[in-house]
Amino acid sequence: MQPNSIVLIGSGNVATHLGLQLKAKDFPILQVYGHTLASAQVLGEKLGTAFTNDIASVLPQAGYYIFSLKDSALPEVLKSFPAYGGMWLHTSGSLPLSIFEGYTSCYGVLYPLQTFSKDRELDFDSVPLFIEANDDSSFNKLEALAKALSGQVYPLSSDKRKYLHLAAVFACNFTNRLYDIAYNLLEEQDINPQTLLPLIKETAAKIETMQPRDAQTGPAARNDLNILAMHRQLLQDKPELLHIYNLLTQDINSER
Amino acid sequence: MQPNSIVLIGSGNVATHLGLQLKAKDFPILQVYGHTLASAQVLGEKLGTAFTNDIASVLPQAGYYIFSLKDSALPEVLKSFPAYGGMWLHTSGSLPLSIFEGYTSCYGVLYPLQTFSKDRELDFDSVPLFIEANDDSSFNKLEALAKALSGQVYPLSSDKRKYLHLAAVFACNFTNRLYDIAYNLLEEQDINPQTLLPLIKETAAKIETMQPRDAQTGPAARNDLNILAMHRQLLQDKPELLHIYNLLTQDINSER
Repeated sequence: MQPNSIVLIGSGNVATHLGLQLKAKDFPILQVYGHTLASAQVLGEKLGTAFTNDIASVLPQAGYYIFSLKDSALPEVLKSFPAYGGMWLHTSGSLPLSIFEGYTSCYGVLYPLQTFSKDRELDFDSVPLFIEANDDSSFNKLEALAKALSGQVYPLSSDKRKYLHLAAVFACNFTNRLYDIAYNLLEEQDINPQTLLPLIKETAAKIETMQPRDAQTGPAARNDLNILAMHRQLLQDKPELLHIYNLLTQDINSER
Repeated sequence: MQPNSIVLIGSGNVATHLGLQLKAKDFPILQVYGHTLASAQVLGEKLGTAFTNDIASVLPQAGYYIFSLKDSALPEVLKSFPAYGGMWLHTSGSLPLSIFEGYTSCYGVLYPLQTFSKDRELDFDSVPLFIEANDDSSFNKLEALAKALSGQVYPLSSDKRKYLHLAAVFACNFTNRLYDIAYNLLEEQDINPQTLLPLIKETAAKIETMQPRDAQTGPAARNDLNILAMHRQLLQDKPELLHIYNLLTQDINSER
């Protein structure tokens, strides 16, 4: 076995960014497995390493097998995965540590709290990594890996990690959907949606120095009934948006 | 009349940041009016100028009277405002230009698309300013002022400005509420909510180079039913949040 060597199981957004950071930190990446040969090849070539879409061809000697797959795919892949040594890790916010039970004796979770897109560069050094392992020895092995990749490493149990992932859905996925709604409203009026960017950036930057509850502004926070009524009027032919508008307005109001 | 001189009617967040930028760009600020003497005094001292809470004491010789008041307060203040010359401006996203009709003959709107907090510094030079005026001559006078304050100045009608304000509510106020929800979820689990900051920052930064619809990630976008079910389970004793979760999830899903 080559203790620091890596096999990446998966070739999506997380595998791509993790792979690039592992390579930047001089971990030997032995191979990339992808669900399709094409996707495995793209990442394999990006990392300058071997690639396969055949589980039986996965190399046996890696120090770490890092599974970055869709959550629904991992249980199936594990069933057919060879009983190799090394440490097995997954990178999911929602799957428990125990998913590896019965397959291997040294395993853990390495959850990066970030939104990854393949074509976008990222400062991985500051991505918070949440880690968990099956025993102290595994934990130490995982912690060494995680600390080599990021300056922000935190232990976290599977139970708590579920809440972290849920919070990330609100703070990232839902937030991005609100950006999309705002863009669509402006495009319909032939207003350049990019004029929103300074506002969006400042809204995010503000909470680096203030608590979100103290940063809350706008007609809902002020309970400005005239504006709320006018906005509802503007949304009258968009029932889904009106519903979202009413719900979030009511929710902000109830916090005052 | 002193053509470039300013009287600020209002002493809140917008008046504060606008006042600081006007001062930085060497516009003489003659006076600040505030609803209470205390708030007028705070801003007056910050800007090194006179202050009052008595409308009858507002100075007559300003080139611009800039009304930055709560939307619901402006109509009342206008009723008792002296019939001074100079250009009258308001800074509201939602009030129409026509609110000044009958009071004066040179008026306009100067709407800064940004979220302002008194204690937070801001790069006003890049705040988009949306302007509108009652005729060409007023427009030119307003445009000169706006371009002295920011590098991003756009003409926009009252009708379209309402949609811009609505979009800003989604992109800023509602987004901040989602941050708050995420923070609360983590605090309940004794997880440091500030570990969300790199994710929040990247979510906002991403759309500087991607359209929000292309940047959408997460279980709703992937229609990952197991995770969606698990998240709903975690929110079962928080009906308002569950409602928001379901609505935004459904909304993201319907866009796929």
